[in-house]
Amino acid sequence: MLRPGERLDKTGFGDLCVIQKPEDFCYGVDAVILADFAASKDPRRIVDLGTGTGIIPFILSHKTSAEKIYGIEYQQESWERAVRGAEFNGLSQRVRFIQDNVASFSALKGWASAVTANPPYMAGKGGLTNENQAKTIARHETIGSLENFIRCAAELLQDKGDFYMVHRPSRLVDIFSLSRAYHLEPKEMRLVAPRKGKQPNLVLVHSIKNGGPELRLLPQLYVYEDENSYSEEIQRIYERAT
Amino acid sequence: MLRPGERLDKTGFGDLCVIQKPEDFCYGVDAVILADFAASKDPRRIVDLGTGTGIIPFILSHKTSAEKIYGIEYQQESWERAVRGAEFNGLSQRVRFIQDNVASFSALKGWASAVTANPPYMAGKGGLTNENQAKTIARHETIGSLENFIRCAAELLQDKGDFYMVHRPSRLVDIFSLSRAYHLEPKEMRLVAPRKGKQPNLVLVHSIKNGGPELRLLPQLYVYEDENSYSEEIQRIYERAT
Repeated sequence: MLRPGERLDKTGFGDLCVIQKPEDFCYGVDAVILADFAASKDPRRIVDLGTGTGIIPFILSHKTSAEKIYGIEYQQESWERAVRGAEFNGLSQRVRFIQDNVASFSALKGWASAVTANPPYMAGKGGLTNENQAKTIARHETIGSLENFIRCAAELLQDKGDFYMVHRPSRLVDIFSLSRAYHLEPKEMRLVAPRKGKQPNLVLVHSIKNGGPELRLLPQLYVYEDENSYSEEIQRIYERAT
Repeated sequence: MLRPGERLDKTGFGDLCVIQKPEDFCYGVDAVILADFAASKDPRRIVDLGTGTGIIPFILSHKTSAEKIYGIEYQQESWERAVRGAEFNGLSQRVRFIQDNVASFSALKGWASAVTANPPYMAGKGGLTNENQAKTIARHETIGSLENFIRCAAELLQDKGDFYMVHRPSRLVDIFSLSRAYHLEPKEMRLVAPRKGKQPNLVLVHSIKNGGPELRLLPQLYVYEDENSYSEEIQRIYERAT
């Protein structure tokens, strides 16, 4: 099942695994906390945009009773890893992966009760780009711009459907302005810091399609307790006894 | 100098005082932290929108070497208190108050190097409105909507001029969307909580006219250390030895 350079990684959620090629990209704690955030309302029909090798759909299959979860991925090789991962996990019926571009994807309009996205963090030309192409596409807005992700989410969602995104706080103005422009009203925001005393380097945003204005701040989330251990909340997300 | 119901209150900044009528409105710690935030770049020419009885211009006259500070106030009685306050403080030349409406104010275009605003927090119809009219105008968007404040600030500022605002975090989407629409790019955001362990209930936003996109989060500010005393940072803002 595995091809050269690939690895079968345990996710920590039940027996679920994900096929990754570390040379290209490995998922981080941002994907895990986004999936947990999106699971809170136990949505029925979910689409994950820019799904990579499928980590968010796999976690959501574990944390929700969703009847169907789609993952959209542009990169051929990542998409194939996601498909093989779904087979390995026995999820091929409930979790489906579609190879397409969020900039032009036009199926499933109005179908989703929830959409998730962990888009590339770097704006078009920002940051280093002298790395391999798979990494560049996963990290930089070369294929999917933030606006593409938000527009696609807005099209996929039913009225009052939920959009969950994780991104950098430095992009909050872009996120809020674009979300409102596409009628995805940001309703909850949660800053995420590596640990207490450190500045937040991630932000979770929950928007509602055609929602009314008024943002709620959720308590800040800390990833680590100290150098060696996750915070209690991250341990809860990972379903470990604390 | 004082009229019925009015009080001469010490500000804690040098000998500066402010004339207030407690029945109408008294300034809070939000005005003080906004003034300190706006003083950081020692601006030359400042306009304070919705200045009330002048607290922000008075503090800025103390914390900056600005050559001229204007305060714009719609309410006749508040404006008169600001004017008498400036006279009492010996600031009538350097600090000037104009009675006008931020929705229609059209002088001083492109004049200001910095604009400050502590607008009414409540959206048009939100919250209680069965209080006296002066309080209602100061707290609710009856006269000056958030958009009016932002548009007025954009008109007053020179290119790359600084706009400093304090508001509720629940309005962040409005603030970011409207600011960008008027080419005031939010560059810094600082959440303010009553004390550690409490949720932020204020937010400071620093925008730059025609600035490029990218928001910086500043460390959270706590107002109180415990039940009885201000935090070290608020004591620094008040210039008290800690």
